[in-house]
Amino acid sequence: MSTLEEHYPTNCPFCNIAKAYPPESSLVPSNPDPEKLSPQAHLILSTPHVMAFLDILPIAPGHILVTTRDHYCKVSDLYNPKAGSDWASQRKAAKAKEDSRAIGEWLPLVSRALCNTTGIEDWNIVQNNGERAAQVVPHVHFHLIPRYQEGRRDIGGRGKVDVGMLKSWRMFGKGSREELDDDEGKELAAELRQALKAEIGEESSITGKTKL
Amino acid sequence: MSTLEEHYPTNCPFCNIAKAYPPESSLVPSNPDPEKLSPQAHLILSTPHVMAFLDILPIAPGHILVTTRDHYCKVSDLYNPKAGSDWASQRKAAKAKEDSRAIGEWLPLVSRALCNTTGIEDWNIVQNNGERAAQVVPHVHFHLIPRYQEGRRDIGGRGKVDVGMLKSWRMFGKGSREELDDDEGKELAAELRQALKAEIGEESSITGKTKL
Repeated sequence: MSTLEEHYPTNCPFCNIAKAYPPESSLVPSNPDPEKLSPQAHLILSTPHVMAFLDILPIAPGHILVTTRDHYCKVSDLYNPKAGSDWASQRKAAKAKEDSRAIGEWLPLVSRALCNTTGIEDWNIVQNNGERAAQVVPHVHFHLIPRYQEGRRDIGGRGKVDVGMLKSWRMFGKGSREELDDDEGKELAAELRQALKAEIGEESSITGKTKL
Repeated sequence: MSTLEEHYPTNCPFCNIAKAYPPESSLVPSNPDPEKLSPQAHLILSTPHVMAFLDILPIAPGHILVTTRDHYCKVSDLYNPKAGSDWASQRKAAKAKEDSRAIGEWLPLVSRALCNTTGIEDWNIVQNNGERAAQVVPHVHFHLIPRYQEGRRDIGGRGKVDVGMLKSWRMFGKGSREELDDDEGKELAAELRQALKAEIGEESSITGKTKL
């Protein structure tokens, strides 16, 4: 990737999601149309600082990405208190600081929504920086990857059964990843949004109020 | 682990580090004595919210843990806006929110210090929740794991050479992990603290001023 493209990433798939789904009055989007983009985007969170959506090549069902709305390549491109003394640099640093802190703030909330929706109790959060660390999309993102136990029943009496234990996975071998089915993605994202609304006290999409 | 111990983790090794190294006036501790604890603790960051220190079973040289000072088991135990309406619950939720946001704020800074010290450009950040996700210490922590390239020269003319490519590692196979050498840990932690001070504008330990 050229330096120019790194700074003006017209082809960054996560920047395309950010553009297609601007922040709404509700932090959890009410009913985002997944067909705005191809491949489809299954959005569950959309704030001025962060977004969360389903990975289109899930390692396990419920594999979510939490990312910044603005473009940063690696995590080291986020908050930098020594960014410079001019107005533009200071403004950029302040935004990057808020973006960094918002990531930290939302990881617990999205994690709980993931647990409540899938019934998992264990999961990994993985953030890759650079090609040797298996980073594919050069826009900083955190993977939330459920770790299912074979045969375990779901909580809450919803009749779900886990899909088999993932004994180990590399960072990330592509062999075991299959494309997300659009219909399944749509259904799962709707359930995750409902769970996330409950987490932040946005119980009903009708109120449209944000208590966070 | 019993439920009681989960709430009052007298034997949590990271809580022991938190107790042994209370916050100082400087966010980056000046010269913490690693021999306060056994195994030794090689601290590089110590704030009221977060700490960072070397992993004692490094997957690669420079393997750092970033953790909260307070005890939370999983990332889902961090910020919860629905924690309760009584004063104690609200106060705990406010602290957990700040702890969550501080993690997000410090990951970029500690990452840059790691890159500048070791010369790496690529690294993984991994946070494991639960036994099936390979969590060993039940106190939320983020692994920063350098990904070295065999034979690559270090940046900055410091004469270092990377130590060999880690082609893949599981989450986490113990086979390839060796105990951190105390002398090497002490030296590396000192270099990381110096790099971290530079990142936050705390250039010299003499000033003791925090500009963050």
